[in-house]
Amino acid sequence: MPSTARDIAMKGGGYYSRATIGAKHVIDGATPLILNSLERMSPPDDGSIFTMSDMGCADAGTSMTMVGAVLKEVRRRAPSRPIQMVYTDLPRNDFSQLFRNVLGLTDVASYYEEIENLHVFASGTSFHRQILPPGTLHLGFSATASHYLSEKPAKIANHVHMVGAAGAERAAYTEQGRRDWEAMLLHRARELAPGGRLALFNFGIDEEERYLGNTGGISMFDTFNALWEELRDEGSITSDEYVDTNFPQHYRTVEEFTRPFRNPADPVHRAGLRLEHAETRVVRCPFEAHFEEHGDPARFAREYIPTLRSWSESTFASGLSAGRPAEERTAILDRFYDRYEARVREAPHGHAMDYVHCYLIASKIHG
Amino acid sequence: MPSTARDIAMKGGGYYSRATIGAKHVIDGATPLILNSLERMSPPDDGSIFTMSDMGCADAGTSMTMVGAVLKEVRRRAPSRPIQMVYTDLPRNDFSQLFRNVLGLTDVASYYEEIENLHVFASGTSFHRQILPPGTLHLGFSATASHYLSEKPAKIANHVHMVGAAGAERAAYTEQGRRDWEAMLLHRARELAPGGRLALFNFGIDEEERYLGNTGGISMFDTFNALWEELRDEGSITSDEYVDTNFPQHYRTVEEFTRPFRNPADPVHRAGLRLEHAETRVVRCPFEAHFEEHGDPARFAREYIPTLRSWSESTFASGLSAGRPAEERTAILDRFYDRYEARVREAPHGHAMDYVHCYLIASKIHG
Repeated sequence: MPSTARDIAMKGGGYYSRATIGAKHVIDGATPLILNSLERMSPPDDGSIFTMSDMGCADAGTSMTMVGAVLKEVRRRAPSRPIQMVYTDLPRNDFSQLFRNVLGLTDVASYYEEIENLHVFASGTSFHRQILPPGTLHLGFSATASHYLSEKPAKIANHVHMVGAAGAERAAYTEQGRRDWEAMLLHRARELAPGGRLALFNFGIDEEERYLGNTGGISMFDTFNALWEELRDEGSITSDEYVDTNFPQHYRTVEEFTRPFRNPADPVHRAGLRLEHAETRVVRCPFEAHFEEHGDPARFAREYIPTLRSWSESTFASGLSAGRPAEERTAILDRFYDRYEARVREAPHGHAMDYVHCYLIASKIHG
Repeated sequence: MPSTARDIAMKGGGYYSRATIGAKHVIDGATPLILNSLERMSPPDDGSIFTMSDMGCADAGTSMTMVGAVLKEVRRRAPSRPIQMVYTDLPRNDFSQLFRNVLGLTDVASYYEEIENLHVFASGTSFHRQILPPGTLHLGFSATASHYLSEKPAKIANHVHMVGAAGAERAAYTEQGRRDWEAMLLHRARELAPGGRLALFNFGIDEEERYLGNTGGISMFDTFNALWEELRDEGSITSDEYVDTNFPQHYRTVEEFTRPFRNPADPVHRAGLRLEHAETRVVRCPFEAHFEEHGDPARFAREYIPTLRSWSESTFASGLSAGRPAEERTAILDRFYDRYEARVREAPHGHAMDYVHCYLIASKIHG
């Protein structure tokens, strides 16, 4: 099957879920952190509403198992409390698919029918704004979403991602990342009820300078950049298009993630948020792990590229001139990902999109 | 432009809103009923959350003006109260479009940025089930939605809609309509806070036996039925397909709408719901009114049929055998609506989809 036809076929049912199985592993593996925070919270069985939220939920598939486990524990501890589960994402998200997944109308296994007095809602309000009424959130969760910035702070002359930027360009991403993180935490602080918890699992740069797709082998973002440069050098894209192509993301260090909690004068600390837990973990790329079993480079390449394409294509598409006809844009993007696939097929070892996350648990103080 | 191409073109941006401008007139015209109920409710300015819901909201376009007027009045009366606006519809609804409309990201004028401390949510839970936690709803609204039954109770041998059914067939629709209405009201009674209000504006049969598209001229449902019979008689559809085609709807009389409130032994009455207001109104078909101005039968026919098609096509499509290829189904439906258009074009007078609604305001008693 030619690559384009295959990609389109894979974008049908299950495309997102298969492409993000690694993101599900990240959440499933850290579920005990959330259950432990619930134990510390010790929600009283007082009949009041208990609200949990997944902020940046996409189709709810990656968090489904975790949310089910946590809400069942809430139900066990507090049988009298109505539970509200609020899924949030940007307005363009497919909320119909989300509701069908959560309400058990698809082949995704859902907790919905197993929990009494459960009320599921969605919000299309960005987590860069306040979503819930003040003081009403008991358990806020967000995974693999806060690296997206509210705006792109600068162009990067020599790379597609801030991990390859330096000097003033790098500083601009760091500053935008700082502001967005502070605003994210302040909005959540207002939403949290006293004693409520936040579980925030986000892409970051760990103590050994590792980050997504850069854990000792071939760097994924450097590969993206090298192939995009190649298209520029051969004239397939213009120099302006190359420079206009930057992921609107910032990967924070642990120091950046935790700083707002550490200084008593920081607005986040003053808003009553306290850090209970911080750690980094590397979760292995499921496609590379699978390759170790089957040993077929072509299969690895064929299965691996769609997961990269699922979240990176919109960035590369947005860098292209608006004046290009749709077919031309599609052809450029197909060529780009086909070349990445060829690289992996021809020399597979070292390619892997290992996940590097920083896991934070925070609490809102009483009174 | 051939009819099919035109229909597809019209299904783009604004199709739903233009096709349902009459439904918006129904809601806008009855907004004072809701504002009056809010005045009787007299929500205290006590800082607690105020929740309004639009149940069966579609893309939120038809209720936007009314919801904005009502929420601004809530904000004026109770500046300290966070407001939750909860839009609900079935999971297959386009919630992304809904959020984009309400959040002000489309050309639909929205109230969203004009009201402080407002939190918008959606639910994909059917109003045939409980949607909100107990005792949390202050103002429940639903328009032009409760005629849809939770299931189709019977096939109708000689018509496509229950308004043309008699005997046991008619009785089966009446009974299903009674059960669904009772369940709808009981779920809402559980959700309502003491003193909360319901505003329910639904298709019905008025005291003069009028109903949607049947207000003295040519009956719309009889026309649907005659054209569907014609397709059967000429062999374009089978007799089984004809009999399998029934709107899963019940149009209630005022007596049926109000009975649960009148008998103190009725579960709805015992659940604390009290009727404050009931009336019927006829709202004129905007396409027929426009025809009176422009006088062009072809234009009237061309503009009128899409509004009928927007809500009726799924019923006629569902009556067709699942074994028919997609192109064949499309061709049958195109022929069907083309013939309706031809009827209107050739003899326009008497065609009109006047809206006939029953307007109810109910309250939940205190304690």
